[in-house]
Amino acid sequence: MTLTHIEHIGIAVEDLKSATEYYEKVLGLKCYAVEEVKDQKVKTAFFKVGDTKIELLESTEPDGPIGKFIEKKGQGIHHIAFNVKDLPNALKETEENGVRLIDSEPRKGAEGMNIAFLHPKSTFGVLTEFCENPQDKK
Amino acid sequence: MTLTHIEHIGIAVEDLKSATEYYEKVLGLKCYAVEEVKDQKVKTAFFKVGDTKIELLESTEPDGPIGKFIEKKGQGIHHIAFNVKDLPNALKETEENGVRLIDSEPRKGAEGMNIAFLHPKSTFGVLTEFCENPQDKK
Repeated sequence: MTLTHIEHIGIAVEDLKSATEYYEKVLGLKCYAVEEVKDQKVKTAFFKVGDTKIELLESTEPDGPIGKFIEKKGQGIHHIAFNVKDLPNALKETEENGVRLIDSEPRKGAEGMNIAFLHPKSTFGVLTEFCENPQDKK
Repeated sequence: MTLTHIEHIGIAVEDLKSATEYYEKVLGLKCYAVEEVKDQKVKTAFFKVGDTKIELLESTEPDGPIGKFIEKKGQGIHHIAFNVKDLPNALKETEENGVRLIDSEPRKGAEGMNIAFLHPKSTFGVLTEFCENPQDKK
């Protein structure tokens, strides 16, 4: 498996607007996209820093994964996503190494990426995502 | 202020050896350095992925910051560190923007970096570090 870079870091926030203001005005990053991912019940805002994105996540429903996360742990870093070249193969290898998968098959995430999550019980407490950019395959 | 890239992501782990094995064998990253930072009561292991490092942190004392974090929240992502070009100026600007600082002056961190932390109460729950590489000033 080849992880080329950290594709993004997902951060759970209560209010996307005020968090975006902090990332723009205080840290000097620019929000280049806002997107709703309905099946994850989130609204996201994206910022680029080096070769990594910051993905702010606001829950659109209290029972969504981000709503539940904030209720349990408060706002903060939610997950880390690595860019992989061949997602189906990366999942196969990871499972063969005894890691529990949340998604055994790739699914669609924000920005048109193919994504899958590993279970934090198998990854030393870090909710870990693999992302594959379909554009890279062309 | 200019954040050039994410310098590293700090991850709190209970056992550095088994976590290192996971990052190497499963994720295919290479541990290129192990370092003890005595004043932070941690032993660290470093991995590079793209322009970012993964910094695994094992507490050497139960009363250290990582020991307390794990006791309260369990293993997982502890902080995110942005590379800045001019750390004293970045801290000044950040404070002027109403953000509470943990370190109002730069101090020495792992790998000889000049570092300072912002308080998560002011940064939407994300323990945020600024890093300046003294080599970049030469």
